[in-house]
Amino acid sequence: MDIKEINVVKIGGNVIDDPSALNDFIGNFANMQGPKILVHGGGKEATRLSKALGIETVMIEGRRVTDRETIDVVTMTYAGLINKRIVAMLQAAGCDALGFSGADGNLIKASKRAPNPIDYGYVGDINPADVNDRLLKTLLESGITPVACAICHDGNGMLLNCNADSVASAVAIGSSRIAPTLLTFCFEKAGVLADVDDESSLIPLITEENFDSLKADGTIAKGMIPKLHNALDAAGKGVKAVRICKADNLLNEVGTIVKLSSLQ
Amino acid sequence: MDIKEINVVKIGGNVIDDPSALNDFIGNFANMQGPKILVHGGGKEATRLSKALGIETVMIEGRRVTDRETIDVVTMTYAGLINKRIVAMLQAAGCDALGFSGADGNLIKASKRAPNPIDYGYVGDINPADVNDRLLKTLLESGITPVACAICHDGNGMLLNCNADSVASAVAIGSSRIAPTLLTFCFEKAGVLADVDDESSLIPLITEENFDSLKADGTIAKGMIPKLHNALDAAGKGVKAVRICKADNLLNEVGTIVKLSSLQ
Repeated sequence: MDIKEINVVKIGGNVIDDPSALNDFIGNFANMQGPKILVHGGGKEATRLSKALGIETVMIEGRRVTDRETIDVVTMTYAGLINKRIVAMLQAAGCDALGFSGADGNLIKASKRAPNPIDYGYVGDINPADVNDRLLKTLLESGITPVACAICHDGNGMLLNCNADSVASAVAIGSSRIAPTLLTFCFEKAGVLADVDDESSLIPLITEENFDSLKADGTIAKGMIPKLHNALDAAGKGVKAVRICKADNLLNEVGTIVKLSSLQ
Repeated sequence: MDIKEINVVKIGGNVIDDPSALNDFIGNFANMQGPKILVHGGGKEATRLSKALGIETVMIEGRRVTDRETIDVVTMTYAGLINKRIVAMLQAAGCDALGFSGADGNLIKASKRAPNPIDYGYVGDINPADVNDRLLKTLLESGITPVACAICHDGNGMLLNCNADSVASAVAIGSSRIAPTLLTFCFEKAGVLADVDDESSLIPLITEENFDSLKADGTIAKGMIPKLHNALDAAGKGVKAVRICKADNLLNEVGTIVKLSSLQ
C-alpha cells in the first residue's frame, strides 16, 4: 500500500473517563479513512488505582511524580487496562488496532528527566528522532492502526512515564518522515476559543504570524499556551497541520488549525 | 527474510516471579537465533494485586475465576506490568520485542467459555485456526519478536483470560502454518521425570507410542497429564516437536521431547 497521508489523533482523559464519549469516539475513529495512529492519555484510572493501593498521588505543575510504585501503577493502567480496552473496542469496530508502549518494537525511546530542579522520578522526555518510523511504516502498510499510550522506555530496560501530548507530537513528527501527517488533538472544547465560555468564539487558524499577538492581548489563556507551543513545534518539525477540536468533531473539518504560516 | 524455522517459547510463574531467573532467561532468550515468539503466564502478581484491592481470588481446578473486577486486574498485570517489563528487558538485551494481548492486531481470538458446569466468568478458549499467522509472518519477517500474554479477545470488544499453555500451543500451531515450529515449555524441572524427586530420571522422548504405557504404569504423574495432552495435541496439529525443559536449559538441547512418533 502506498501511503499518501497519515492521521495521528490524540485523546485524553475527558474521552477516556466517559464510557459514552469513548464509545462514540471509537466509532468515529474506526470510520476515519486511510492510515492512522491513535495516542491516548491516562485519565483518572491511575489515580483511582493508586488511591486503592494506598499510594499517594503527587502532582507538580500538572505532572505526576512517578516513583517506583507509581511507574508500576501507570504501566498497568495506561499500557494494560486502558490500552487493551481501546484496542479491543477498535477491533470490534472493524479497525485493526495494535497497542503499544514505547518499549514495544522500540517505538519510542525516551530519556529520564534530570532530577533537578524537580525530581519527577520515572518520567521521560522524547526526542522525535527516537520515534521508530520504520516500524510505523511497516505497520501502516500492513493496514494496522498503532494505538500508543504514553509509557516509553529508555532502551536500557527502564519504563518511563511521558506526557501524552508530547508523545502524540513526537509520533506525528516521526510519521511525517513517512508521509504528510495531520495531528488532531481531541479536546473538551470546540478548539481554541477567544472566550473560553463561548463555543462560537473559535479561533479558526493560529500560525506563527498571529500567535504572539494572541498571547500578547490575552486571547490565548494560560493552559492553552504549552499546548500551542507543542503544536507549533510539531508544525515546525514537519507535521503538515495540527488541529485542536472536540472529539465529536473528529470526522468534521472544524476546530482550530495550527500551522507555521497562513500561506502554507 | 526467508523464514526456515520458528521457535515458540513459553515461560510461567516460576520464571516471572524470580527476578534473577527472569534476568537469566531474558539473556538466553535474546541470544536464541532465528525467528522466535515468547508467550508468558502471569505469576503471582495478579493475586497480589487482587489482594491489595480487596478482591477475593477464587481458583477452581487450578483456574482463576475471572469476574469483571478480576479481568481488569489480570489485564493490568499480564498485558500491562509483566508484558511491558519483559519487553523493555528484551529490548535492552538487543531483542526487538513487541508485546501483545490477543486483541492487538487480532493476534488471538478466543471464545468465552460456557457457564456450565462451572462459570469461570471472563475466561476464554482458543481455536488455533483463530491465531493470526499473517500478522505473525509480517512481524517475524521484519525481525520482530512477538511477546504474548494470555489475555485474548472475542472480537466483539470483550477481553478474556486464557490459559497460557493453551495460548503457547495455539500460537505454535499457528506459526507452523508459516514454517516448521518448535515449541518449548520452560518448566521448574529438567523435563518429564520418571521420579519427580530425581532430575536424572528424565524421560527423553514421549510419543503417542509410549504415552499410554507411561500413563498406565503411573510413570507420568497427575499434573503432567494435561501438559502432555496439550503437547501431543500441538504435535498432532503441525508443531514439529515440543520440548519441556528447565528455563536454564533453553539454549541446550536437553529436556523431554514430545512428538507424535519416534519415527519423525
